Amino acid sequence: MSRFQAETATDDEIAREAALYAPFTNAVRELVDVTIRTEVDEDEIRAAQAAVEAIVERLRKKQIDGAYGVRFRADGSRARNWGNAVMGLRNPIAPPLEVKSDGDGRAWSDFRLGAAYEGPPGLTHGGVIALILDQVLGHAVSTSGRPGMTGTLTIVYRQGTPLGDLRCEAWVDRRDGIKTWGKGRMLTADGEVTAEAEGVFILPKWARNLDRFRAAAEATESGFELE
Amino acid sequence: MSRFQAETATDDEIAREAALYAPFTNAVRELVDVTIRTEVDEDEIRAAQAAVEAIVERLRKKQIDGAYGVRFRADGSRARNWGNAVMGLRNPIAPPLEVKSDGDGRAWSDFRLGAAYEGPPGLTHGGVIALILDQVLGHAVSTSGRPGMTGTLTIVYRQGTPLGDLRCEAWVDRRDGIKTWGKGRMLTADGEVTAEAEGVFILPKWARNLDRFRAAAEATESGFELE
Repeated sequence: MSRFQAETATDDEIAREAALYAPFTNAVRELVDVTIRTEVDEDEIRAAQAAVEAIVERLRKKQIDGAYGVRFRADGSRARNWGNAVMGLRNPIAPPLEVKSDGDGRAWSDFRLGAAYEGPPGLTHGGVIALILDQVLGHAVSTSGRPGMTGTLTIVYRQGTPLGDLRCEAWVDRRDGIKTWGKGRMLTADGEVTAEAEGVFILPKWARNLDRFRAAAEATESGFELE
Repeated sequence: MSRFQAETATDDEIAREAALYAPFTNAVRELVDVTIRTEVDEDEIRAAQAAVEAIVERLRKKQIDGAYGVRFRADGSRARNWGNAVMGLRNPIAPPLEVKSDGDGRAWSDFRLGAAYEGPPGLTHGGVIALILDQVLGHAVSTSGRPGMTGTLTIVYRQGTPLGDLRCEAWVDRRDGIKTWGKGRMLTADGEVTAEAEGVFILPKWARNLDRFRAAAEATESGFELE
């Protein structure tokens, strides 16, 4: 089943939904954190489990079939990805990242990672670093005016990344036909670089027939191998 | 604060803890899933939020300071990583992956990803694919008898990875001094490869003075650039 859906809600309706779901999802994020960290008695854990199961049962009475998908407005002014694993407003797994961009190929995000993102003791999981860099690089590429699916992603780990306050930055490095190269890095609150990334993002097939991308697609198809 | 800790529990105590925490954490995983997917009324969402906040308050009454860390037994027979973002028994963000290995450089895992791991509509987030490959490659390397921290990781995306039942496989490709190269891939339930990975894993500094790794460390330090 395709999860590309038309956005049918108005901006006001979306704002009302956000005001409802953001604090609920944040409460579940707190529960995720304390599920890892709690040291209360066994009886308390069993009581909490029963209470969580009761909430799940009530919420499951009416639910969408499958994943959230992405809801697009026809004029391209909005793509609502509230289920996204990194940015999703309704996804408790997402920190969530709020990614900013200058619309000209630069994107960045300041965020905080807690106990749920641990890999080595006290440090951010190396794969979580890759997950966040993928999202922010992709954001830099797509907000530069050209959508892109990740083709390749390389992460170089310079040192352990502590949990806590972090910053991720990304930028478009160059373009060639349907390919866009993005670069980025992860930094501590003190500005130390802990990891660097490079990714190749590929113009999706559905976009290659659009007027504004046709020249890029044709340049690639005549001169470069397709991925 | 270091999160390397000595394991003080016996095998029996650990088994009892697992029997308590695994079903509780699974209940929270269900809540994460339905938080994304529920369509019940606003009043029900607000009631669920209040109920979750009450559970959080009770569980926070006694909790560890910071992240879970990793608990090591002195004889090396156990490293309990229950907070790990991919494998952690107590981490609701972890699918969780159960990674198997033959102890000779091969590791694999069969698992299921639901709505919480979405990136493109209906597909697994590319960064989640990197997260899981990092974990399984690292597992192949470390269970081959040589611990390793991820130095570099490259993912090549061949096609979109559906949500649902998936398999990840990894193996040690070669070694050179303190470096171990791991390779791996992500497959659908039908056995189609959706992504491939290669990583360089570096013998951590604390292990380079151990008798069994000293030759490897010295070969590197005399002949190869350290990363």
